[in-house]
Amino acid sequence: MRIMGIDPGLRRLGWGIIDVSGGRMSHVGNGTCLSGGGALAVRLLALHEQLTDVLNRFSPDHAAVEQTFVNRDSAGTLKLGQARAIALLVPAQAGLEVGEYAPNSVKKAVVGVGHAAKEQVSHMVSLQLPGAVLDGPDAADALAIAICHSFHIQNSGRLEAALRRASA
Amino acid sequence: MRIMGIDPGLRRLGWGIIDVSGGRMSHVGNGTCLSGGGALAVRLLALHEQLTDVLNRFSPDHAAVEQTFVNRDSAGTLKLGQARAIALLVPAQAGLEVGEYAPNSVKKAVVGVGHAAKEQVSHMVSLQLPGAVLDGPDAADALAIAICHSFHIQNSGRLEAALRRASA
Repeated sequence: MRIMGIDPGLRRLGWGIIDVSGGRMSHVGNGTCLSGGGALAVRLLALHEQLTDVLNRFSPDHAAVEQTFVNRDSAGTLKLGQARAIALLVPAQAGLEVGEYAPNSVKKAVVGVGHAAKEQVSHMVSLQLPGAVLDGPDAADALAIAICHSFHIQNSGRLEAALRRASA
Repeated sequence: MRIMGIDPGLRRLGWGIIDVSGGRMSHVGNGTCLSGGGALAVRLLALHEQLTDVLNRFSPDHAAVEQTFVNRDSAGTLKLGQARAIALLVPAQAGLEVGEYAPNSVKKAVVGVGHAAKEQVSHMVSLQLPGAVLDGPDAADALAIAICHSFHIQNSGRLEAALRRASA
């Protein structure tokens, strides 16, 4: 099972891919899409093209995106909303369901507490995915989102199996 | 010259197409893309597919989108940002430059004043595009954006011609 995590941002959009097999995770790739300069439409197009390339290259089975933190200035919220639309659209165009997780849920899944610093997330991602060379904090966050989604999928799988056993 | 105007909204996204020839405008089409229910990624995908269909059907030469009014609650701003990303992305994917206009500029171009009611915009759009049957207020706003963009293109054309004459 291959999972793609996406950390949306208009200037820098992080992505990270992991494989999960028999409860073991391994790193596949991570990186950052850059929107460059110019008009907003051109920047969104650049993010869309780069993220579509990543998805076509790695063919993930699942995708997850960080839920946006709206508690900031409205101009920043608007930019983030625009970047987030690209992060949601690209996997949906490939027919994938897209999981969404609040930043605190992601940190709790990866670090164990909801209020962890960015460096702590990077550190724990490196520990859980040995050999991964992180492209930067946005790519590390994207891997953390993928890890969080893998926990969610495995737990719901275990729950379903338990329910099947209980009703058998 | 064919111009597409887009009024972005996550639930209802209005579009309107006009032709401009020799300073005369005519109505080509207008309508509303609906995102339906379900997950956000699915709703954005629905808007992207419907708007891409409209663009492929009418093949506009220019596109323009209303600039978002960020002076509202942050959850609303985020939704609008997400819808706006689709409105900007679709024409950019077709290689079109995308004009952006503040709501007040659109109203001033179409009604003559910056603070006009929605009904007034619909009324003036109907007067300027005889025969147009408006699909609703969002589609009327989209036609108003197309009209505003046509004025902008024609004025910049006249300015360039005047500059050419002055330097000849």
